[in-house]
Amino acid sequence: MGSLSGVKLTKLKKISHPKGDVFHALKSSEDSFSGFGEAYFSSVNGEEIKGWKKHTQMVMNLIVPVGTVIFYIYDDVLLQGVKYQLGEDSYYRLTIKPGYWVAFEGAGKGINLLLNIGSIEHNPSESINVPLQTFPLVNEYGM
Amino acid sequence: MGSLSGVKLTKLKKISHPKGDVFHALKSSEDSFSGFGEAYFSSVNGEEIKGWKKHTQMVMNLIVPVGTVIFYIYDDVLLQGVKYQLGEDSYYRLTIKPGYWVAFEGAGKGINLLLNIGSIEHNPSESINVPLQTFPLVNEYGM
Repeated sequence: MGSLSGVKLTKLKKISHPKGDVFHALKSSEDSFSGFGEAYFSSVNGEEIKGWKKHTQMVMNLIVPVGTVIFYIYDDVLLQGVKYQLGEDSYYRLTIKPGYWVAFEGAGKGINLLLNIGSIEHNPSESINVPLQTFPLVNEYGM
Repeated sequence: MGSLSGVKLTKLKKISHPKGDVFHALKSSEDSFSGFGEAYFSSVNGEEIKGWKKHTQMVMNLIVPVGTVIFYIYDDVLLQGVKYQLGEDSYYRLTIKPGYWVAFEGAGKGINLLLNIGSIEHNPSESINVPLQTFPLVNEYGM
């Protein structure tokens, strides 16, 4: 099991309700919160991988309310990567500090949806994209 | 078409992507933003209605990334209600100031999921729940 110092996994509560469950995401009083800049959704089709992207300023808080998404996180200084699988059946929040490369893969057959609550607004000049073959997709689970 | 002064509908961008679309939700620079307290998801099964609930302090920002949800909003001073249908095919954000009664209905056959980005953290003492039959579910569309 690998781990990276700027990556934190937090178990989230799901509250059962006969008319439809309620799922926690993020509270401003939690350690994972570093300010609110923008919230957006990104969907990823089954067997597709989006990445790599590195944010140089944004702290990401990632939650997967529908489907399953595998996150690959790579540290290009330590040359070390971790992998986390998040989704309806593994309901965690992944907090990622700036400076890591992130890629993510759709692992469910239907909709795979992630919410990112970013500490700053989207700004293309603070993020860098490189092709998927640039870094290895680790096979070890980080959790 | 009805409208209520403390309720605002904002068209949101969906950005097409061959591997899975990206959906805007909320930026801190937008008028609809009144601070970040807590983000949470609520799902509502098809043909079920959750409500009524009135927040006395929280500003809600509601987004429906999956499925379809009908929102009923009732003003118990004006004795007037509005109805909005939000979802994948009608991708808007609904901003609701405190003081209105809100109920919502699952209108899709699969998952109907809403994200609320609330201006304060969940606090049961600032919200009031009453049974669904208390107020009328208006049939006029607010949009």
